[in-house]
Amino acid sequence: MADTYPVVEVFGPTIQGEGALAGALSHFIRFGGCDFSCHWCDSSHAVLPENVRQVPRLTTEEILRQVLQLPDLSADWVTLSGGNPALHELGNLVTSLHAQQFKVAIETQGSRWKDWIHQVDQVTVSPKPPSSRMINPGLQHFMMRLTEVKYVGRNFTLKVPVYDEEDLDFAAKLHQAYPEVPFYISIVTEMGGLRGDFADGRVDTAGSLLARYQRIAQDVLRDGRFADVRVIPQLHYLLWGNRIGV
Amino acid sequence: MADTYPVVEVFGPTIQGEGALAGALSHFIRFGGCDFSCHWCDSSHAVLPENVRQVPRLTTEEILRQVLQLPDLSADWVTLSGGNPALHELGNLVTSLHAQQFKVAIETQGSRWKDWIHQVDQVTVSPKPPSSRMINPGLQHFMMRLTEVKYVGRNFTLKVPVYDEEDLDFAAKLHQAYPEVPFYISIVTEMGGLRGDFADGRVDTAGSLLARYQRIAQDVLRDGRFADVRVIPQLHYLLWGNRIGV
Repeated sequence: MADTYPVVEVFGPTIQGEGALAGALSHFIRFGGCDFSCHWCDSSHAVLPENVRQVPRLTTEEILRQVLQLPDLSADWVTLSGGNPALHELGNLVTSLHAQQFKVAIETQGSRWKDWIHQVDQVTVSPKPPSSRMINPGLQHFMMRLTEVKYVGRNFTLKVPVYDEEDLDFAAKLHQAYPEVPFYISIVTEMGGLRGDFADGRVDTAGSLLARYQRIAQDVLRDGRFADVRVIPQLHYLLWGNRIGV
Repeated sequence: MADTYPVVEVFGPTIQGEGALAGALSHFIRFGGCDFSCHWCDSSHAVLPENVRQVPRLTTEEILRQVLQLPDLSADWVTLSGGNPALHELGNLVTSLHAQQFKVAIETQGSRWKDWIHQVDQVTVSPKPPSSRMINPGLQHFMMRLTEVKYVGRNFTLKVPVYDEEDLDFAAKLHQAYPEVPFYISIVTEMGGLRGDFADGRVDTAGSLLARYQRIAQDVLRDGRFADVRVIPQLHYLLWGNRIGV
């Protein structure tokens, strides 16, 4: 029997809202299941256990078929997202997507290494800051494994969600620990959250998200510890709000 | 007597709002004078002849001193903007900025080639679309000269401002003519304009700019001619509105 994987949604083409591919056209495959439960998680449908347990499990062949049935396939990129897609054995899927001339990106918090990640064209490692209330003891090992193979055409970046000053301090220290890795600060969007202070139903408007972007950008510009970083709001939220599947 | 150059403003650090460095921290040097007068020009203070003729002329040494007096110098990038900075002989300035460990970016419409552009670390060629009412007979020569030297660490991209469907068609044809060049679509922001329909005083709010972003993103996603492009609104406008010098 073929291996199966929990697929929450296959959608696109749409605009990648974050990180090194911000603004790029990409298809998305969102996998269910996460080893984290960030307090402000914006993908509860792929993270909460009661949701994840109901997610259909598909074979590599079935996932590929769903991608190829999307309305327009001219965009070059397919992004593996979640949850944490690095929980799963997706090497065959990456190979199949490459065979269809897609470039493959992954978004992961960098908690669990998988060797197939070396085959991915754009790796976004997104360590979670203090406001997430998560800790990530696996990050250092993940970064070590990721950087042990550097070959042409394979790119990786760090992308840290930032909500407040404590998060910015976390980001600065991480940037200083990995000064050679392209570094992105992504403004946290409030989308109802999973837990704690963030689960109070507050949802950002474009205006409140841009106000946070302005505040954090000013803090970064005054900080002095950031040399070559990018500060970008979640473009997909500015485009589509909190709609799922776009 | 040392050569002098018309410098409208030296400012930063701030957030680069567009193109390959969107979101990046950069200082800016804005030069006066332009061979174009795009109808929706967002930098009339550097373009209108009556403004340009009053701009102070500074030596390379004086420009460098103004950069080094900016409030925070931790950002890696200095961006040469305008107007069209490629009207001027800025080779010595680029060398001086490199000697201070800055990386140098340039924004130009690609109408006038200068050999010193080969020394620049990030070249953004921004051909103007039909809504600008400009034509650019020099673009093909500029792209030929730009691409005759490809060496490691030198990057260049195309960035086309798009306001409407006719502009998007122009962008698609340019993307198809230079399929190997990283391609950015930048949403035109209405900022009062220089001439024609755009000089009616209309100024975008964040809301009206985001509505245009959404419309153009949807058009790009449905178009089928765009494989590996990025679609990004002017982040500096979302951050600071139409304030000058930030």
